[in-house]
Parts: sequence; structure tokens; C-alpha cells
Amino acid sequence: MSILIVYENKNPNLWRKKLKEKLSKTKIEIYPTVKDPTTVDFVVCWKPKENCLTQFPNIKVIQSVGASIDHITTTQDLNENIVISRIIDENLSNDMWEFLLSVVLSQLKNKEIYVRQQNSQLWKQQDYQSIHNTAISILGLGKIGGHVAEQFAKLGFKVKGWSNSKKQIQNVKSFTAKEEFDDFLKESNFLINLLPLTDDTEDILNKDTFSKLPKGTFLINVGRGEHLVEQDLIKFLDNSHLSGALLDVFREEPLSKDHQFWEHPKIQITPHIASLTNVESAVNQVIENYQRFRNSKELLNKVSLSKGY
Amino acid sequence: MSILIVYENKNPNLWRKKLKEKLSKTKIEIYPTVKDPTTVDFVVCWKPKENCLTQFPNIKVIQSVGASIDHITTTQDLNENIVISRIIDENLSNDMWEFLLSVVLSQLKNKEIYVRQQNSQLWKQQDYQSIHNTAISILGLGKIGGHVAEQFAKLGFKVKGWSNSKKQIQNVKSFTAKEEFDDFLKESNFLINLLPLTDDTEDILNKDTFSKLPKGTFLINVGRGEHLVEQDLIKFLDNSHLSGALLDVFREEPLSKDHQFWEHPKIQITPHIASLTNVESAVNQVIENYQRFRNSKELLNKVSLSKGY
Repeated sequence: MSILIVYENKNPNLWRKKLKEKLSKTKIEIYPTVKDPTTVDFVVCWKPKENCLTQFPNIKVIQSVGASIDHITTTQDLNENIVISRIIDENLSNDMWEFLLSVVLSQLKNKEIYVRQQNSQLWKQQDYQSIHNTAISILGLGKIGGHVAEQFAKLGFKVKGWSNSKKQIQNVKSFTAKEEFDDFLKESNFLINLLPLTDDTEDILNKDTFSKLPKGTFLINVGRGEHLVEQDLIKFLDNSHLSGALLDVFREEPLSKDHQFWEHPKIQITPHIASLTNVESAVNQVIENYQRFRNSKELLNKVSLSKGY
Repeated sequence: MSILIVYENKNPNLWRKKLKEKLSKTKIEIYPTVKDPTTVDFVVCWKPKENCLTQFPNIKVIQSVGASIDHITTTQDLNENIVISRIIDENLSNDMWEFLLSVVLSQLKNKEIYVRQQNSQLWKQQDYQSIHNTAISILGLGKIGGHVAEQFAKLGFKVKGWSNSKKQIQNVKSFTAKEEFDDFLKESNFLINLLPLTDDTEDILNKDTFSKLPKGTFLINVGRGEHLVEQDLIKFLDNSHLSGALLDVFREEPLSKDHQFWEHPKIQITPHIASLTNVESAVNQVIENYQRFRNSKELLNKVSLSKGY
């Protein structure tokens, strides 16, 4: 009966400390230092290495430390009785909204252009665009996407969303299914990807999708690197059909030094920071779930493995 | 009886065309091509050159094409019977709000740092700050400042304002007079200047003011260049008391190529574009005022010359 933390590139000790504060009697180990692999039944993890969890035959619960679980399901060959749960954190949704608003406003107000102009002492006024005549199309209207869509609409943007099922969000036009995909893409100034990564959504940001967007659309990918067909993006930036892209997620992270994205003049790169799990707020959800697990209660934020989110 | 447009560095022909659409029978000339200076009684102007208007002995109204009038009052020696009026345009206030929001969010989300990191292919996550724990202090709560303060507060920022008289704006703490100035400056993450330029406010962004701000405050000047003591800013950036500054207005515009602001690593420069008068929306106010003038009615948005705004 022990908790295992698998969190190799981050700060597992901080997690251990926080969990210990409220679970003082529980054995909590940090991967890979595990005394007896058979005692591990509850795993708290982020991006475990390929099949790293198969060494632990008695896992009952895998608790993702973020909003997504594809970093677990795509890398581990799991017994289907294992319950997977994720963090649903209002802060995560809200941080994402603030990040996306900053990206959109930077574009509307020509932030990158003025940085370049300053570098060459150039004083030149550029036309700017306003919120009320800016259309934002959001792929994915789940917990995070739904919140983001609602907030953009509240501020006066024209907002559309596309998701697995129709959603009721004030002033957000909801589209669903393949048949409505083309209509969803029309009349966009920004396309924001917030979809979960599943077999159906992998590679969804491809040349077919791009070609249905109006000329001049700006792409923001804060979903997963695997949603994007990289060469299709380069092509549609170079032929000026897309005006630019901000990418926060990549197929390989950290993005390798020699990747062509770094130096592309129309690509802005952020190092997967749109929304970072706040340990303080996430740790309470993990503790709650651990206690529910021990008391044989239903876990919070369980993931449907068939849907993938 | 004629209108004179004084708008040398911009596009006076566009203004003439727009005014002509509704004032087809009125004589409208563009400075400096004026047949008979004595016929000019209504001037539409932006930044007239030193005493350029004294050539016209019969001016009754000077209509500024922006929200400010200091560009007229500080450069012209005017008969005190002349009525000066300005544009009060919801778009101006709203554009200013959108611009300021974009600047603040760029700072919170480390936009400039990521641009630099991308230039050196550096993948490094930076901590970000959120709206709810960010305090904004606004100098000036007039038409524009009041709107900006209200919108920042609505979005969840902690907002204070300092102005000539106490203001009632929801969730905005109002400060006034010299005695409350020091309290106003405390606990700020951002100091935004939106004051009108008067004898009392000139040079208000000086070392005394900066020293009363908390260490790490970011300055945004969208008022006038004359509000800022340039060498005091440089000093307080270089000693890291201020974390940075965005300047949209300058004592000399365009900013001269050899000005030290251009290359200062903590200064961001935009070429006076926070809020640009929209010809479409401003032209209607000018026409309305011209018709009121002809019919001896009270003008809209007359300026109190004793207050200066």
C-alpha cells in the first residue's frame, strides 16, 4: 500500500513534501527508487517513460498531474482495470484563458512588429484591429476550451467552438461532427486548438484544415504537438495563407535546437507554459482522490478510456 | 465662413473628403493653402506648428481631432474667446483599454523574454503571474482613464486610480490630491499614466514618484512625453527599482534615431499608437460641432481652458 511519484523532469520532492503534509502515515516513494514494486498501488505521474509502469504489478490508480492523460495512455501498456484520473483545476483553465488572451491581443496590437521596429529604430504606425471585429474559432470545448470560449465571448470577441457534442455557452456558436467542421472554420481570424489528443484528433491541424480557413488566419496550438502536421504548417505559412502561428506544444519537448520552427519568421514559440499545474491547487485533488481510493469511493475526474479524456 | 484643416503629418485629404460628404456647400481648405485667411472661422486640427493659427484673425472654434488639446494650447497664443473642443470617442477609450490590456498581459506572460529565448533557441519555462494577483495603478481617471480602470477591475485586476476629484467606479479605489499620492503609489505592479498634460502634471513621472513605487513596478506612459523626466526613468531602470517601461509617447515625436530609449533593454517603444482617432467616428462629432457652431448652439466636448482638459 504505497504511493509512487513518477515525475522525472520536474520536482518530485516538492510533490512528496506536499503530499506528506496531509498523508503523514502513507509510504510515498519517488521513481525510480522503489523498495518493493509490489506494494505500489497509487501512482501520481507526469510523462512516464515507455512502459515504465509495467514494473508495478499492483497499480490500481494512476493520477495524472495535469489536465491530460495522453502522456500515460500512449506510452504505457496498461491493464484495463486500472483507473486513470486527471487534474481539473480552475486555475489551469483560467491560466490558459489569460495566456490565450495575451497571444491574441499581442497579434491585434502588432506587438512582434513593434519589437522588430524598435530593433532598427523605426518609427512607423501600424493599423491595429479591435476585439469587437475579431473572430476566434476554438477546437475543443471541454473544461478548458469551454471556459476559454466563454471568456473570449464575454470580452466581446466573436466566438465559435467545435467539439464532440453540442455545447450551450453564452454567445458561443457551437459546431459538432465532421459535417459541421468546414462551416466552423469559415470566418476565423484565429484558430485555437484545445482538443484532447485521441486517434480522431491526431494530425487534425493539417493542410486540408488550413486550406478551409480564410486567408490570414493565425494559428495557436496549445493542445498537443501531435495535433499538428508540421510540414503542412510550414507550407501554409510560406504561401501566406496563414499569417502566423504561436506554438506552445511540440511532438518532441524540449524542441530540439535544430528544429526549423525556431528560426521561422512567422512562428512564435513558447516552451509549453500556457498553463502550468499549480502544485498547491493540484495536490489537494490528488489527496482527495487517494482518500477516496482507500475508502473504496468513486474517484474525482476519472477518465473515460474509450473517449480518451 | 470656412473650415480650415491643419493636419500636416497625417492625411488631411481624407478628412476633407469625409467632411465634404455631409457639408457639401461649405468651403473647406487644407493648411497652408488658404485663399483668404480672414474667412477661416472653424479650424479642425492636430499638432499645429508654433503659432500657425495666429495668421487667421477670425477663428471662433478650434476642434482638436483627438482627445487632448495640449498640442494646441501649448503651441498657440490664442485669443481667449476662442472655443476649443476635443473628440470624445468611445472607440478611443476602448482602443486604449485594449492596448493597455495587451501590454499588461504581455508582461505577466513574459512575452518579451520568450521572444529573446526563441532568438537563441532556448527552451526555458518562466513563472507567470495571474490577473487576480496583479495590482494596477492608474494616473488619471477622466473619460479614458475611467473607462480603462473600470475594464481592468471587471476582468479581476486590483485597480487604483488617482485624479483631480474623487471618482465612483466599481471596484476601483479612488485617490485624489497630493496628500493621497503616496498611498496611491504603494502596492503597484503597474503604473499607467493617462493624465492630461497641464502645468501641474508636467514631469510628474520623476524620481520622487518612482522611489515611492514598490520595487519591480512596470511603467506604462500613454499620456504625454512631457509627463516623464527621461533621465529619472533611465536611472530607476538601471538600478532595477523599476522592472521595465513601455513608452508610447515622447517629448519629441517621432523619437529621434539616436535617442537612448531605442536600445535600452528594459524599454519597449511603440510609435504613439495606443489609441488612434478613427476618422469615421470622429468626423461625425466634428460635423455635429460645426453645425452647432453655425446655429449658435453650445458645442459638444468643449474644453475648460483653466483646467486644461
